[in-house]
Amino acid sequence: MKRIALDLMGSDKGPEELIKAVESFINKYQDVTFFAVGKKEKIDCLKGKCELVYADDVLGMEDGALEVMRKKEASMLKAVSLVAEGKADAVVSAGSTGGFISSCSIKLRLVKGVERAALVSPFPKSNGDKVVLLDIGANNENNASHLVNFAKMGRVFASIYLDKKDLNLYLLSNGAEEKKGSPVVKEAHQMLKDKNFAGFKGNMEARYVMNGDADVVVCGGYEGNIFLKGSEGAIKLFSNLMKDAFKSSIFSKMGYLLSRKGFAKMKQTVDYKNYGGAILLGVNGVAVKAHGSSDARCFESAIKLAYQMLDLEMLKKIKEDVAND
Amino acid sequence: MKRIALDLMGSDKGPEELIKAVESFINKYQDVTFFAVGKKEKIDCLKGKCELVYADDVLGMEDGALEVMRKKEASMLKAVSLVAEGKADAVVSAGSTGGFISSCSIKLRLVKGVERAALVSPFPKSNGDKVVLLDIGANNENNASHLVNFAKMGRVFASIYLDKKDLNLYLLSNGAEEKKGSPVVKEAHQMLKDKNFAGFKGNMEARYVMNGDADVVVCGGYEGNIFLKGSEGAIKLFSNLMKDAFKSSIFSKMGYLLSRKGFAKMKQTVDYKNYGGAILLGVNGVAVKAHGSSDARCFESAIKLAYQMLDLEMLKKIKEDVAND
Repeated sequence: MKRIALDLMGSDKGPEELIKAVESFINKYQDVTFFAVGKKEKIDCLKGKCELVYADDVLGMEDGALEVMRKKEASMLKAVSLVAEGKADAVVSAGSTGGFISSCSIKLRLVKGVERAALVSPFPKSNGDKVVLLDIGANNENNASHLVNFAKMGRVFASIYLDKKDLNLYLLSNGAEEKKGSPVVKEAHQMLKDKNFAGFKGNMEARYVMNGDADVVVCGGYEGNIFLKGSEGAIKLFSNLMKDAFKSSIFSKMGYLLSRKGFAKMKQTVDYKNYGGAILLGVNGVAVKAHGSSDARCFESAIKLAYQMLDLEMLKKIKEDVAND
Repeated sequence: MKRIALDLMGSDKGPEELIKAVESFINKYQDVTFFAVGKKEKIDCLKGKCELVYADDVLGMEDGALEVMRKKEASMLKAVSLVAEGKADAVVSAGSTGGFISSCSIKLRLVKGVERAALVSPFPKSNGDKVVLLDIGANNENNASHLVNFAKMGRVFASIYLDKKDLNLYLLSNGAEEKKGSPVVKEAHQMLKDKNFAGFKGNMEARYVMNGDADVVVCGGYEGNIFLKGSEGAIKLFSNLMKDAFKSSIFSKMGYLLSRKGFAKMKQTVDYKNYGGAILLGVNGVAVKAHGSSDARCFESAIKLAYQMLDLEMLKKIKEDVAND
């Protein structure tokens, strides 16, 4: 039985959407016990379907480590605590990213051998494959040793998640050449080279992350955030322009009607709601950060991600690999 | 008369494409004197149309400051030197970015009051406007004072280039809140706030750069490179998926035929070839870095950018504004 704790108070869209996700998931998978955490009046509708854990408080979107220490009654804290106490194995929340990283780091602690936790997420590629990028925003500043640590976790994650043996791993940089990169990237490059790190292929420019042969791309959390959000913004711009193009004349509107089936698949590929969210790697527990504006479909993808991580025994494999390295 | 020096040897596509661009430009604008710099056998076809300056050597794509000091016969160096010697007012090259920044910094020197030169480029926005981003890659590492300097240059550039008085200027960061950002961004934020820097609106996440109310976004060169290349990659992914969608069935192919007129405008908006390249702000001369894989259309846009900069007296205004601040 998989035991998953759900913070139902975090999404901008309200707990109702997240509750729909839980109900839908329960109908599809029988081997899960859910702990639903949230305000009594919001979550009582799940009585009989989930273990209910009442929490009167909610972390704000700007709350960080300090508020995490203070707001002990917050739903996110209570959900994470269920994992820390061994009652659940995974936690999913759509609440504040900063709060989630702080809660997990404080309550779950880091896996032995891990210097910093990292947020990881799969991204779509032009050829239909996926690429795994980390850290996409758990850290504000990283040193070279952190990046090497992320490379280790990323390699384990990708080999299991993408089910692939020979992985191509790159460092995100401002040029493919060895001498390119920030001082931190240059140092990490040298460290990975000195280690003969399996699969390490060198530096990669941001433009090839989703259009090249990379399975894993490693970067600091700050650069990862800019890459992730910048790509989202570019895709938003492109979608808006595409909508305008289809609306521009009666012919293009007819064109849309004829071609929309082809576009359904495309939408599925680039729509972040299908990816559910990001996984915080390196803490003692499966921790999935769902998108802050999660609707039912998005939160269900996030729950599924947690379910897959338990199914694949991701945490066990990270522990074995990173500790033994 | 505007005097522009052209390095015709830099593009991956070969000098023939760049020569086409020069010929096309000459047919449209009469108030320009061009200095064509390159190998004799390649550029002699421009005899009578341009002042010819022969250069036997070419900078490689990986060449940096050291090679710039050594390869005195390289076409890029000779083109930049024409500006340094006062024979030309602007230089355009599609060669190595690192080489171009080094050549310009060494030969043209920095404008008084400028700490570091910065590459600036306009980006399209969802609403049809443009946003100006700097530095998109002239620097590998920046401190807070550099970012404040970029903000000053960016403000002058945008007010002239976008022809707009009340500008919204932001710092690129990993969150909109004041306390978010790398240590350098946090310090720059405080400095701009202390100065009551006109138009400074705070931090901006990468996802809103092309979808928000920013006219100028300031960032370090490393982050700027990741933003620029990441966005290019995302748009490439999206274009590929769109092509697949239109090809997916006979209906969608018909849909494409009906709607393609609407897509022509969209292509124009996102196609980097229409933007020509980036401008290196802060050196004593107009310096335009065209895309490394410039074809005729792209290089002509780059020449036009140099022409506009001269027309708008950009350098004079940067000198006045930054020195007097």
